[in-house]
Amino acid sequence: MQAEIIAVGTEILLGQIMNTNSTHIAQGLAEVGIDSYYQTVVGDNPERLAAVIEIAAQRNDLVILAGGLGPTNDDLTKQTLAKYLNVPLVEDAKTMQVITDHFEQVGREMTPNNRLQALYPAGATPLMNHNGLAVGAFYQSPDSADFILLPGPPREMALMFDTEVKPQLQQAYGQQSQIYSRVLRFFGITESKLATVLNDLIEHQSDVTVAPYAKTNEVTLRLSAQAASKTAAKAAIDQMEAEINGRVGEFCYGRGDHNSLAKVVINDMIAKHLSITAAESLTAGQFQSTIGGVPGVSAIFPGGFVTYANAAKHQLVNVPQKVIDEQGVVSEATAIAMAHGARAQLATDTAVSFTGVAGPDELEGQPAGTVWIGIAYRNQPTVAYEYHFTGDRQKIRERSVLVGLDLLRRAIAADTDFKK
Amino acid sequence: MQAEIIAVGTEILLGQIMNTNSTHIAQGLAEVGIDSYYQTVVGDNPERLAAVIEIAAQRNDLVILAGGLGPTNDDLTKQTLAKYLNVPLVEDAKTMQVITDHFEQVGREMTPNNRLQALYPAGATPLMNHNGLAVGAFYQSPDSADFILLPGPPREMALMFDTEVKPQLQQAYGQQSQIYSRVLRFFGITESKLATVLNDLIEHQSDVTVAPYAKTNEVTLRLSAQAASKTAAKAAIDQMEAEINGRVGEFCYGRGDHNSLAKVVINDMIAKHLSITAAESLTAGQFQSTIGGVPGVSAIFPGGFVTYANAAKHQLVNVPQKVIDEQGVVSEATAIAMAHGARAQLATDTAVSFTGVAGPDELEGQPAGTVWIGIAYRNQPTVAYEYHFTGDRQKIRERSVLVGLDLLRRAIAADTDFKK
Repeated sequence: MQAEIIAVGTEILLGQIMNTNSTHIAQGLAEVGIDSYYQTVVGDNPERLAAVIEIAAQRNDLVILAGGLGPTNDDLTKQTLAKYLNVPLVEDAKTMQVITDHFEQVGREMTPNNRLQALYPAGATPLMNHNGLAVGAFYQSPDSADFILLPGPPREMALMFDTEVKPQLQQAYGQQSQIYSRVLRFFGITESKLATVLNDLIEHQSDVTVAPYAKTNEVTLRLSAQAASKTAAKAAIDQMEAEINGRVGEFCYGRGDHNSLAKVVINDMIAKHLSITAAESLTAGQFQSTIGGVPGVSAIFPGGFVTYANAAKHQLVNVPQKVIDEQGVVSEATAIAMAHGARAQLATDTAVSFTGVAGPDELEGQPAGTVWIGIAYRNQPTVAYEYHFTGDRQKIRERSVLVGLDLLRRAIAADTDFKK
Repeated sequence: MQAEIIAVGTEILLGQIMNTNSTHIAQGLAEVGIDSYYQTVVGDNPERLAAVIEIAAQRNDLVILAGGLGPTNDDLTKQTLAKYLNVPLVEDAKTMQVITDHFEQVGREMTPNNRLQALYPAGATPLMNHNGLAVGAFYQSPDSADFILLPGPPREMALMFDTEVKPQLQQAYGQQSQIYSRVLRFFGITESKLATVLNDLIEHQSDVTVAPYAKTNEVTLRLSAQAASKTAAKAAIDQMEAEINGRVGEFCYGRGDHNSLAKVVINDMIAKHLSITAAESLTAGQFQSTIGGVPGVSAIFPGGFVTYANAAKHQLVNVPQKVIDEQGVVSEATAIAMAHGARAQLATDTAVSFTGVAGPDELEGQPAGTVWIGIAYRNQPTVAYEYHFTGDRQKIRERSVLVGLDLLRRAIAADTDFKK
């Protein structure tokens, strides 16, 4: 079973609106286990629309068209499809009633072109539009591809797809086996390194396929299994995850599509009642802002310091002037003093500090990207590590924040008090 | 001149990421006056990719491929294109040097597959990637369609497209008359309100077309003029901008595609030698992190405070316990005391404070989205304003930061010391 999504709309081609409809439909198809190998966008032009329908019908079992069902002269999707299918358009009585009622209710005259919104290709199943007036349709063909017609406005499309289309897809194409997947998230290892270490698992795909994706500052692996039951799929995925963790487990910080290093670390700290503060120079509050994005962080995060200028490092977190003068502001000693001082001020269990060169200019003779990150962790001696990040100012700061979180994650993992 | 955009990536087909690249490229093509009638998405599969390249080359003069230039086995776009063009892949020495330097700098081993990122089809012009390692390419063919290869990560793609591709498109396909455009940026007014107020200018497009785009938290207007010379276009655009500013100028904070409220406000403050600090509760450092992103901010920003817990508000910026007890922590009095206290600590010209309910839970009986923002500005009395933002935790915090910046912008604009 293979489907193609065709979004119809000149606005998308001009870059005036994002093609959110195709993303929504693509997610839904993945969820019901229908493969989708192509998406197309075409404008409100009947010749070009007919051409892409022809191509899509040849290479797929199902073609989903979104857009161009409205009442204006531009809206020609169902007319074009009906011509391709060689069937007439017929009126859906239920939709016609909704349209008539609507115009009565708002007290406006119903122009004839509004009737167009109730038309659908003869032989199709009409799909109700609960957020608008244009009817959708599901056309099952015995000898060509099947077609689904959806309205273009995202609110109308999403509701119709979720409530009307998805159940019908499962009914029409429901498979024996279902696809299950799990996302593993990695920090501190590149996509290419991960792909090299796991090359045999990625190449010789068995019951479980392994697909790496490079995200901003991290890499994910999607493990997918096709199996008769969720239990069987889960067992296969568990086994593959164990194999992967045996090789690169130290870099794997968590699971899930909508997860992040900050969420994992902060939720773990909330659960363990580990409080935190920070003193930030080059990151200028970005570390604290990032942990502040996790709901519930207030239980462990009283606040902290942005110590951009040298004087603020001394005034706010008691970095000795002598340390700055003798060791430099971008130094191990300053990073340690910042973490130490911040923790002392707010009496927390942990503190992270950041001092370095965000760029574009160098500082104290050190190039942009030189960063010291300090960590004060419970009864451990306060330490700091040196990094050399690449990229622009924003990239260097983002990377610093994530490495700070990863240092915390590793410190907690090594903490014997929390070992099972 | 007609171009098709092909986004390559299985993640887009699975609905895991939005296809923002195609939108960005589509906008750019519209700006340089190149028609685009089709967009395609295809996965990381060489047979299907070859098939869509074939179709696109037949129906267009130019095909732009984005995605699949990385170092993993999944990344096959340039290999597939080279096969279609029947040319070998060759190494770009400049990119190879960047890759080698990168791995030396970060002190990690360079795996052989990383060399792949320096390859491009022989005969093409390599396009430098200033946000990543994979080189792009512009292949002009005498007897088939031309091709452009771009990386998939949006940061890399957008910068390469804007700085490398757009000028080359204009040079390669430049028309008699050129299109010039200017972007105006608005904060604090919705797209629909702006479209209503400027309806006549948008609808009856004359020499200068006016196109509104809704962005996250702001709206932009792109003014474009097609004219024989840059001078003539600039004069027409100037006139239109004056007309627009006469109607909604108070909301227009700046110009330019790659601009932001933070850049405009902070650069203005640097020029005027106005120093700043902040005390942040719900935003947890996001305001300071945002201004910290502007190069040169260190001249006016010594540092500041994240005062998440009530005790930290008292301890770090001297909010009287009595104020919190009697007025509540989400209150005008607390916001004023925070701004006042932060400024007093670091002796700056200005200070901004944020206290409110980021959610998801309510606080002190006030719903998520209730935010007080305080501003201490030079010799003006310190004041605070109440806002009710909608959306999730992150949206409420982002909105708060931007409103804080806008309050500064308006305070500076009203400051008679800086009037010409």
